[in-house]
Amino acid sequence: MSKGETTRQQIINEAMRQSVSLGFEGISLGGLAGSLAMSKSGLYAHFKSKEALQLAILEEAIARFIQAVTKPAMAKPKGLERLRAVFMNYLDWIQGDKTDLDGCIFMTLAQEYSGKPGPIRDLLVASQQQWRTALQQLAEQAFPTKRQDAEQFTFEMIGVALSFQQSWKLIKDPSALQRAQQAFEHLISRYQSE
Amino acid sequence: MSKGETTRQQIINEAMRQSVSLGFEGISLGGLAGSLAMSKSGLYAHFKSKEALQLAILEEAIARFIQAVTKPAMAKPKGLERLRAVFMNYLDWIQGDKTDLDGCIFMTLAQEYSGKPGPIRDLLVASQQQWRTALQQLAEQAFPTKRQDAEQFTFEMIGVALSFQQSWKLIKDPSALQRAQQAFEHLISRYQSE
Repeated sequence: MSKGETTRQQIINEAMRQSVSLGFEGISLGGLAGSLAMSKSGLYAHFKSKEALQLAILEEAIARFIQAVTKPAMAKPKGLERLRAVFMNYLDWIQGDKTDLDGCIFMTLAQEYSGKPGPIRDLLVASQQQWRTALQQLAEQAFPTKRQDAEQFTFEMIGVALSFQQSWKLIKDPSALQRAQQAFEHLISRYQSE
Repeated sequence: MSKGETTRQQIINEAMRQSVSLGFEGISLGGLAGSLAMSKSGLYAHFKSKEALQLAILEEAIARFIQAVTKPAMAKPKGLERLRAVFMNYLDWIQGDKTDLDGCIFMTLAQEYSGKPGPIRDLLVASQQQWRTALQQLAEQAFPTKRQDAEQFTFEMIGVALSFQQSWKLIKDPSALQRAQQAFEHLISRYQSE
């Protein structure tokens, strides 16, 4: 990596870290330059606008999500084992311990951009639809006789993850992880037995 | 209501409407005064600080939620019918059609304040815990032989609502409502049959 690329990456890393809790509107190029101990004009040399930086953060977050959640699960055998691996990686991602981020940036942006049309919303919706399609395919592989219900499975699995995030991050319920796993196992049983 | 109280209420209404999509950090007293066509000092006469206004909005939102979601369900017979009514009112609240708000302000604030300690977070967490306790009691009444699992029911029911919100508001999935109802009915069946 060239020096310029390294700096660009440092800016994205710090901006992403801040965005998880503050949202994209909450970050300012000035504040960001301050926390990186660089000049505002130095930062502008890498990103011509706040929106260019926001798009770069979102693209990087999508790449990291695939790297942390989807890709490692592909090493598991197709079917239930792979689906379970994706779910556990997803809970890890939400907790943020392994990503050095304080939570799931997509959930922050989902709230912030659901009513705000534009390129950020478009990329966010596309990434969420891609994630849903990936989950749906995993569910189809895990429950081949219930292919027509894979979309409903995805809807409910995402619900478990969202509830986990709220219990864990907001309410700080110590049983959140256990509840999420239990909910997921119930969901699997239903699709295996129906 | 006195003129002062009416003005105070108008400020809260407009600020709440804006907060649903912008979050509490996204609203400014100056911008708010502009949209209400009043002076910034006139607005300050009602709220000494942004935090005082934020607390007033959150208190008002809690009162409205009880009025829109919990209270009307109490007219239904105790048990499954009341639980179903609360769930449907909750989905209505998330859609926001009847509240004249563009979504659920608690979900916006849950993202914004999960990592931000202080009086707003405290009141938000207390309100969410109260809501969970209320749901838990409704689940205990609906499934008296499964009292020990009422907390798990609550965790999963909230997940369905959160997934509904994301599908409906962000992804704009036309089947979101149907999926949420289906998920809820499956959850009920499980608690009735296990």
